[in-house]
Amino acid sequence: MDFSLIPDGTVTSVPGFVTGAVHAGIKDKDELDLAILYSKMPCVATGVFTTNLAKSAPIILSQRHLTQRKARAIVVNSGCANACLGEQGMTDASEMASLTATKVSIASQEVLVASTGVIGKPLPMSQVRNGIEKIELHQDGGHELARAMMTTDTRPKEIAIQVEAKEGKFTIGGVAKGAGMMHPELATMLCFITTDAAVNIDFLQQSLKKAVDVSFNMLSIDGETSPSDCVFLLANGLASNTEIGFNNGGDFQNALNEVCVSLAKSIARDGEGATKLIEVVVEGAVNQTEARQAARTIVSSPLVKAAMHGGDPNWGRIVAALGRSGAKIREDKLDVHLNDVCVMKQGRPTRFDAEELRTSLARLNRVPIKVYLNLGDGRATAWGCDLSEEYVRINSEHAT
Amino acid sequence: MDFSLIPDGTVTSVPGFVTGAVHAGIKDKDELDLAILYSKMPCVATGVFTTNLAKSAPIILSQRHLTQRKARAIVVNSGCANACLGEQGMTDASEMASLTATKVSIASQEVLVASTGVIGKPLPMSQVRNGIEKIELHQDGGHELARAMMTTDTRPKEIAIQVEAKEGKFTIGGVAKGAGMMHPELATMLCFITTDAAVNIDFLQQSLKKAVDVSFNMLSIDGETSPSDCVFLLANGLASNTEIGFNNGGDFQNALNEVCVSLAKSIARDGEGATKLIEVVVEGAVNQTEARQAARTIVSSPLVKAAMHGGDPNWGRIVAALGRSGAKIREDKLDVHLNDVCVMKQGRPTRFDAEELRTSLARLNRVPIKVYLNLGDGRATAWGCDLSEEYVRINSEHAT
Repeated sequence: MDFSLIPDGTVTSVPGFVTGAVHAGIKDKDELDLAILYSKMPCVATGVFTTNLAKSAPIILSQRHLTQRKARAIVVNSGCANACLGEQGMTDASEMASLTATKVSIASQEVLVASTGVIGKPLPMSQVRNGIEKIELHQDGGHELARAMMTTDTRPKEIAIQVEAKEGKFTIGGVAKGAGMMHPELATMLCFITTDAAVNIDFLQQSLKKAVDVSFNMLSIDGETSPSDCVFLLANGLASNTEIGFNNGGDFQNALNEVCVSLAKSIARDGEGATKLIEVVVEGAVNQTEARQAARTIVSSPLVKAAMHGGDPNWGRIVAALGRSGAKIREDKLDVHLNDVCVMKQGRPTRFDAEELRTSLARLNRVPIKVYLNLGDGRATAWGCDLSEEYVRINSEHAT
Repeated sequence: MDFSLIPDGTVTSVPGFVTGAVHAGIKDKDELDLAILYSKMPCVATGVFTTNLAKSAPIILSQRHLTQRKARAIVVNSGCANACLGEQGMTDASEMASLTATKVSIASQEVLVASTGVIGKPLPMSQVRNGIEKIELHQDGGHELARAMMTTDTRPKEIAIQVEAKEGKFTIGGVAKGAGMMHPELATMLCFITTDAAVNIDFLQQSLKKAVDVSFNMLSIDGETSPSDCVFLLANGLASNTEIGFNNGGDFQNALNEVCVSLAKSIARDGEGATKLIEVVVEGAVNQTEARQAARTIVSSPLVKAAMHGGDPNWGRIVAALGRSGAKIREDKLDVHLNDVCVMKQGRPTRFDAEELRTSLARLNRVPIKVYLNLGDGRATAWGCDLSEEYVRINSEHAT
């Protein structure tokens, strides 16, 4: 398989998909806050949803709609999560779906709904109604959609890749949002992925789960899981490739992983208050499950995150996080590398140049942490960001 | 049972216990950093230890010494955790025990060792040797001990209570330290408790576990578990009460809970950068286990902690944390009270005066959060603190 990044690519880089966005007035600031993504062709569709038990109304509705395994439109708003509002929330989410369905002349069941923002505040439905009416769908609307999803994000997250597989050429595009309330299970964000590949729906469902597992589920900003998280994937088949399924899905899986990992890293890099991307690789765990646990615990540790913020090579905190992760360790087999400098070898501190490492850590905008457990062949990578005073400032301001 | 707080009470308020502390030079700053607690009489003793797999050398040694279920002295230092140092760490911890044993003429096995501070830095043993030699033990040394244990703590944590039980009068005293790397399982700190009660050792072991479960294990500063945590309890029997055991231990258990909860709250209030104690009560969970999970998840949530720092009545974050806690919830049965104001009733936001609540939250130095699940009779309380810019500042400064 070969794939290439499409310059400035986004969800509408994929043939057949159009989007549009407006400032409906859900956010106070004059920013885009409502958008529709629409496929001109019927699509098979699948989703992965938050594990939070306090699910938002749009999540409940979209899960219901996806039972038929097809969808042609997504309507999304920022500024209000439509969560914790009981029946009113469900009524409003349903109305968003049916207004969108009417606008593009499809069944209401084919519309997925996503809302992100403050919990417990009802949607201003007159603004939503006017907004949906005013949205104009066009071929290069992907960037608008990516902006309309943003809350505390400082930049849009978008990607599209062109894939040349044995089954034919196809394109995968994705947009995502997420900056706070971010943690594995699910990685607490919105992500919409489009593709023109012809894909078997059973395979597509499994394929998205696998891709989410190695990307968004390995991402943590602050250990929180929001009630609104979801990843939607729509495949319209326009690429006319040989249908992709379980027996020939390897290339598609790799390409989809690539898109999801890239978006996950963009989200980590743009974490609330973040100045650095942290990438934790754990190798040699007893098995993959323990490797994942260890990588996620380290990347989520507030003390590791704060140390990396200050450029402090405080590897003791990495070992302490590892020790409470649940993964089996043997201290006398443990090696730790920080920005490719070995700081612990077989459980003992090495004589590294702390001043030099400090200087290099302070300069980096991507900090690689590598932990070798030397017990088995479990391997995993997790992404997160440093913890800054700015994170606290953003989250102690009044949102209510 | 009746009990009264001893004014200015500490571990040496209990008859038979003496302590002393010095500045040995383990810390750079001219602060007390080495102390010995000693019982003139033989004691039965028990301990509870960190669940972190990267255990420090003093933890391993003290666990070994406590297998004989008696101890007469504790030697403790701050400024260096003696963790992640392999064989050297064990040698140094053993030497600390034997020097202390020689000083007070007891067996080395009767000395418990505790070290707190930076991980991966070897103990400066010549300072430790000189320090132990210089320590003078005296009757009112408890306050010195409490100060010598401090790392990023801003104030010592001490308590002593006088108990009048059916079994006779006795005293329980405790000192604790801990401000960062604090989370349940175990609550990531050092705590030494003394009592002159005559107590059956089997009962004492179980009793300490129970007390730790409702106090330090319900405490979170930042979700971290350190490799050095321990709680030691020494009982010298000088009170000449009827021996306390399983059949008559209720009063002792209540008194011990009281001491542990009080010290746990002191620790939460003095969390790194903390300006407020947060107390989360969960009622009506399916069972106690789920109530504990829910209370601990809410009190550990960085977004809840940041909101409380800013005095923001953002109850949506409380519900979001609850939703990911693993405890069963039914949104339409859920009530949430913030500083005794009902902000959510049966899963729906109430019309509370947000401005007024904001003003009161900003003023409080103890924020009560109450969550009623209305599903069963599980009940639990957890303690923590707000998340401030100062926490990040403290932990991004160079410790290495």
